[in-house]
Amino acid sequence: MHNDRTRILVDSIKRLLRRNATVHLRKIVNKTHGADLSMVFRSLSITQQLKLFIMIEDIEQQGILFSELDEGAFPALIEGIELDKIVEVLDHMPTDDVADLIGQLSKQKSDSILEMMKKEGSEEVEGLLHYDDDTAGGIMNPDFVALREETTAKEAIESLQKEHFDVEMPFYLYVVDEYGKLVGVSSLRQLVVVPPEERLKDFMSTDVFSVETSMDQEEVAKIVARYNILAVPVVDETNRLVGIVTVDDVIDIFREEATEDILKMAGVGEEFVETQSVIRSVRIRLPWLFASCIGGIIAFFVIGHFEGSIKKLAYLAAFIPVIMGMGGNIGTQSSTIVVRGLATGRLNIRDTWAVVFKELSVGFILGAFYGFMIGLVAQLQYSKSMLAVSVGLAVISSMAVAALVGSLVPMAFARINVDPAVATGPFVTTAIDIVSVYFYFRIATTLLGI
Amino acid sequence: MHNDRTRILVDSIKRLLRRNATVHLRKIVNKTHGADLSMVFRSLSITQQLKLFIMIEDIEQQGILFSELDEGAFPALIEGIELDKIVEVLDHMPTDDVADLIGQLSKQKSDSILEMMKKEGSEEVEGLLHYDDDTAGGIMNPDFVALREETTAKEAIESLQKEHFDVEMPFYLYVVDEYGKLVGVSSLRQLVVVPPEERLKDFMSTDVFSVETSMDQEEVAKIVARYNILAVPVVDETNRLVGIVTVDDVIDIFREEATEDILKMAGVGEEFVETQSVIRSVRIRLPWLFASCIGGIIAFFVIGHFEGSIKKLAYLAAFIPVIMGMGGNIGTQSSTIVVRGLATGRLNIRDTWAVVFKELSVGFILGAFYGFMIGLVAQLQYSKSMLAVSVGLAVISSMAVAALVGSLVPMAFARINVDPAVATGPFVTTAIDIVSVYFYFRIATTLLGI
Repeated sequence: MHNDRTRILVDSIKRLLRRNATVHLRKIVNKTHGADLSMVFRSLSITQQLKLFIMIEDIEQQGILFSELDEGAFPALIEGIELDKIVEVLDHMPTDDVADLIGQLSKQKSDSILEMMKKEGSEEVEGLLHYDDDTAGGIMNPDFVALREETTAKEAIESLQKEHFDVEMPFYLYVVDEYGKLVGVSSLRQLVVVPPEERLKDFMSTDVFSVETSMDQEEVAKIVARYNILAVPVVDETNRLVGIVTVDDVIDIFREEATEDILKMAGVGEEFVETQSVIRSVRIRLPWLFASCIGGIIAFFVIGHFEGSIKKLAYLAAFIPVIMGMGGNIGTQSSTIVVRGLATGRLNIRDTWAVVFKELSVGFILGAFYGFMIGLVAQLQYSKSMLAVSVGLAVISSMAVAALVGSLVPMAFARINVDPAVATGPFVTTAIDIVSVYFYFRIATTLLGI
Repeated sequence: MHNDRTRILVDSIKRLLRRNATVHLRKIVNKTHGADLSMVFRSLSITQQLKLFIMIEDIEQQGILFSELDEGAFPALIEGIELDKIVEVLDHMPTDDVADLIGQLSKQKSDSILEMMKKEGSEEVEGLLHYDDDTAGGIMNPDFVALREETTAKEAIESLQKEHFDVEMPFYLYVVDEYGKLVGVSSLRQLVVVPPEERLKDFMSTDVFSVETSMDQEEVAKIVARYNILAVPVVDETNRLVGIVTVDDVIDIFREEATEDILKMAGVGEEFVETQSVIRSVRIRLPWLFASCIGGIIAFFVIGHFEGSIKKLAYLAAFIPVIMGMGGNIGTQSSTIVVRGLATGRLNIRDTWAVVFKELSVGFILGAFYGFMIGLVAQLQYSKSMLAVSVGLAVISSMAVAALVGSLVPMAFARINVDPAVATGPFVTTAIDIVSVYFYFRIATTLLGI
């Protein structure tokens, strides 16, 4: 539904661009939110984008457009915009968003922009560029409201009116001591409901959650989500307040992390590829298929080893797909449950053995069920009970091993601080394939005596 | 890191429970946030949970604990709590959270609670229970601040102090006309910075995003995320303001939807299973493996059809895993990219043919690359050029078909309003397996003339 609206907007704008209907275009552009315009920009050429951009009258909307553009679209767009104009727009944007955009530019371009930006703002932006992208420091906004304990509610409100006009979403006022260290917090709401002469120290809350600059962004997001707060203050190693992470960034983090996890689990790297060219898409996806290719070649040699048996009983080959498939699918189930459980905090690495044992039990029970079914098919088709037993046992062992490996590998990865999501990709599946095929032929050749 | 803190908390609480150290327990329980306690409750028996629950002195924290409990834990916990006490806690909670909890109870239990709750609150809760769980109406909070256009800033602040004390996160004040229809919005921030005598109509914003009660929760969440707002007003079909959806619920929606998508894509249903018993886990996962089992049996008959050829050239069987594996993996890549692209709005169902054509091209190019490599291995091992060519062509066709099916099926599902995430599970993989194996044997038997 929302997609439809964007599509209609794209269609109208394209039609107006073809007809060069400047008056109409100007009207539609200035009635559209910057976030919506950024979706339209995806479908336009750079020349068309520039044409629309200069029509935007509200500088805030220009800033929103900048920050909502797809990764990589900003450097291309600003090639056609004068430096003065770019700096003017950036000056009106939240510092954390500016730092994100500048981080996408070449060294030369970013230097010339930082030089032109107002002294203070530029220092803040440069400060942010020093932190790791994925940490609290890298995502925080250094503009926040910090007041002293002795400030009265009335004075605090006045400071909101005068000094802190450009602060993003000022729903919390932080209270700091003479060294800038965080000591408390008050909500804007509390400020308006207490008597005007009351001091912050008398009504502020001293139970204030804070995070350190080096904390991973996913941890920061989890804290905001867990305590249902709108922003979390960021402090340096000495507990000095240096920034805030707001809830809108937290939403972006969760969406980004979920996408990364999903792509990694499917073995497509962690970048979005759907809007990229065929050639770039091929380059990103090619290496991830390598594990599967090597695994397949190993399986080829394993089966080659049993060539003599296959010559005698050709129908042995017919069971390869079902045995591989059952193992592969239950392995994916197990690894996905573990990876997502770890990401959402519902599983803990300290429970490794309990989780793995449970998965092994589930694999064994499901293996027994499907082993019986598939063995039955073998029996009905070939009337050879030893073949049926071999196939059944192969399914059981394949599924049990798959559930074991599928749960153990991501747990082990998490323990040594490797992202468990990569463990669910082609690596584990491929390993399971090889083991399944080997077990199958070992069991069958032994039981059938060939 | 955060997980570690929870674990330490669980360990200390368990130790204190064993020692029956009531004084210590009471201290630790009342120093811990309700959201953290809810994580501890996961590891405790119901008796232990009850023991801790009655120690909590702050009724707000009791409410937070209730709403943060795992799905299904609430009905079990309150079996041991008196109805009076439950109702008292619920009365202090946001209405949307109360409705979520009551929705988990049996008809009898929920009726008796609703009857005991204060008349007004209970009506609101019952109102919410009528909406679909996954819609704006089902997740909205019916407590919000709505004022008339003529209200002055000063009067608005006074109303916050008197009437609207229990509103959740009142960062926006909505402005309604005499019929309760939404006409504008002001932020709490604006309220404190304008002169006290100014009327809402003079400084409110009339560009107010709103959603209808029937809108899907995922769409609602996308709107809040796109426009970086803290709450979105919910209106009925006549534009009458009936509730708000706050950003904390939006975070939960995104996390929930990401988890559902991931589980569906892995073929594990859409429920969390990692905290459930082995037997329940088996029951949930068993049906999802059925597609894979049937597919494997079909592949078995396909290969059985070529039994004569395998008898002559047993090594043909050795290539089955690599051909299936390459097809399966690229199919997973394609379907994952499409499913996540649709979920994040970066792909649109109207672009179906462009997307499918692009995936087909990628599949073809990657197929050519890996087909050459695997064909080369075949050549080096068996020195039969026709075998090498057959294997190479089989890899190309398997990977091209897999990319085609992997992208087309989720797109087609989305078009007919079936959740595309289910298309990436065992169904598609299994279909690809069958097609791959069939193509391989057709090509090989034709080229090798057997």
